[in-house]
Amino acid sequence: MGMRTLLAVDAGGTSTRAVVVDGLGRCHGYGQSAGGNPTSSGLQQAVDSIVAAAAAACAPPRPSPGGPTLAVIALAGERSEPFTRALSGRLGTLGVTAVLLEPDLLGMFHSGTPRRDGYALVAGTGAIAARVRGGRVERVAGGNGWLLGDTGSGFWIGQQVARAVVAALDDVGPPTALTSLVLDHLGIADDATRGSGRPRTLEQVVSALYAWRPVQLSQLAPLAFRVPEDAVAGAIIVDAAAAVADLLAAVHHPDVTGPTVVGGSALVRGLLCAPASLRGRLAALGPVGGESTVVNDGVVGAAVLALRHADVLVDDALFDTLRTAVHRARTTRPT
Amino acid sequence: MGMRTLLAVDAGGTSTRAVVVDGLGRCHGYGQSAGGNPTSSGLQQAVDSIVAAAAAACAPPRPSPGGPTLAVIALAGERSEPFTRALSGRLGTLGVTAVLLEPDLLGMFHSGTPRRDGYALVAGTGAIAARVRGGRVERVAGGNGWLLGDTGSGFWIGQQVARAVVAALDDVGPPTALTSLVLDHLGIADDATRGSGRPRTLEQVVSALYAWRPVQLSQLAPLAFRVPEDAVAGAIIVDAAAAVADLLAAVHHPDVTGPTVVGGSALVRGLLCAPASLRGRLAALGPVGGESTVVNDGVVGAAVLALRHADVLVDDALFDTLRTAVHRARTTRPT
Repeated sequence: MGMRTLLAVDAGGTSTRAVVVDGLGRCHGYGQSAGGNPTSSGLQQAVDSIVAAAAAACAPPRPSPGGPTLAVIALAGERSEPFTRALSGRLGTLGVTAVLLEPDLLGMFHSGTPRRDGYALVAGTGAIAARVRGGRVERVAGGNGWLLGDTGSGFWIGQQVARAVVAALDDVGPPTALTSLVLDHLGIADDATRGSGRPRTLEQVVSALYAWRPVQLSQLAPLAFRVPEDAVAGAIIVDAAAAVADLLAAVHHPDVTGPTVVGGSALVRGLLCAPASLRGRLAALGPVGGESTVVNDGVVGAAVLALRHADVLVDDALFDTLRTAVHRARTTRPT
Repeated sequence: MGMRTLLAVDAGGTSTRAVVVDGLGRCHGYGQSAGGNPTSSGLQQAVDSIVAAAAAACAPPRPSPGGPTLAVIALAGERSEPFTRALSGRLGTLGVTAVLLEPDLLGMFHSGTPRRDGYALVAGTGAIAARVRGGRVERVAGGNGWLLGDTGSGFWIGQQVARAVVAALDDVGPPTALTSLVLDHLGIADDATRGSGRPRTLEQVVSALYAWRPVQLSQLAPLAFRVPEDAVAGAIIVDAAAAVADLLAAVHHPDVTGPTVVGGSALVRGLLCAPASLRGRLAALGPVGGESTVVNDGVVGAAVLALRHADVLVDDALFDTLRTAVHRARTTRPT
């Protein structure tokens, strides 16, 4: 394909990343914007975010033979006809003539490997695992949302932290080092006096947390990783790891032996920083505690998918070039 | 106090009950209306409901010496000055000159016993326990709501049922007899075909349940009690019973040896109907599985509190008369 360029976008729930790449694995531009998932951000906001990131990636200095004509967008969830039409129309103004949508899980997977078989695990606000075979998502487990699933996710860990602290303040659960961390986080002073039969501190914590949207509880998840030696916090971390190991077990197939690519924030970083005392128990749970490639997002993988759609063979050497180039573009872009 | 009558109201989250009683334990009227809790129904709706139930209880045939002048309202949560003022004003039109508010837990407790010491456990949509000493609520545990507490409540059981079925359909959790019960409840046919890597039935169940308000998951709780011999359902029931036993343990005090009065719907009825195989495990958990008095609501207890405020001594004989009279008034009222 020579010097033809391609647009690749990773449209996530909280942020969107776009790159312009070529068949030699070079990166000609990088852009970033707000959430680009139509389910969580709404159709119009999602289209605006994707176009904003794409426009930034296409901004001068332009790649020599002109802008990209093919765009691959990696994103989660259902894709409606109105969304696809609006997106194609808007990207057309950048010169794009063909827009292809791919699952975000596939973008995440190929951000860690160019191989066509393996497993992806995303443990961020939600928790979801996928089996990839022949470059396609063959089986998905998890990702059923904060109320009905996502055990082990950032939300789940944050909710367990909140419930443990509420139970401890209520003398229904064991005392935990999480209590003072949550009180600090909420800016609530410990007040042992009781009003109407229960501690005032408890009433304040309950009021403060119900003023949040439920999914905001995920912001408490990092507190568990700050005191992993605490019995209550340690149990939450181990249970979370066990739950995501169960997700990986559910998508496992003996014929598919490729790598496991792990994406997401809270859980991944927490597990990687887990103290030696926990790490033994976590390793016993399987791939989560064992060997895996960790990625921050799916934009490199979206570029791999775009290159494949342009019939470029992405081997290990090209993948390494591409990953390094995207990383450099991302870290050196003008702020 | 002779033939003076008293108004007693149990203002709950979903319904409100009122009675007019006298110092001999007779019941002169019964009324029922919608939810009367200002926190869940809003101030205006709560006042309207309480007044509607009270007016029905005061309707002719009137008690001989005229209507009640003292009203005791048992209800949960904080009582605002505007609520109390609005309520007093409206009840004044019925001839009431003094309105006293009491905790709903105390009304529930005294619906089961005239004794001044003991324990109350309410396991309905929420789960809360109280220690009663000297006729006052001395200590409360639980009742922290569906997101942060209420383990073992009707909501919690319903959510565990939903999560278990979602996990089973996703092959992440064990198969369970709950799956077909939930599918029937939702009117969803079992469809084994897969779309985008996951079963269509799972996608339909997840969509249907997220269309509900979270607390509506409590309507799935009774399904667990329909298949208690199922390993998954049985574990949910035992965990729920253990959690409410923990609540009772948290309020227990060695000096307070009175009876345990249990109120609420789903859990109570389910536990009472638990098969012999589970009942052994439940009994080992303590008072929940052991001896306790079960009550439907707190209206008898509100009447006990009203009589006490009028300096009537409520002994066992008067309590039995009162309970029988209220039950008769409730079941024979015109429909």
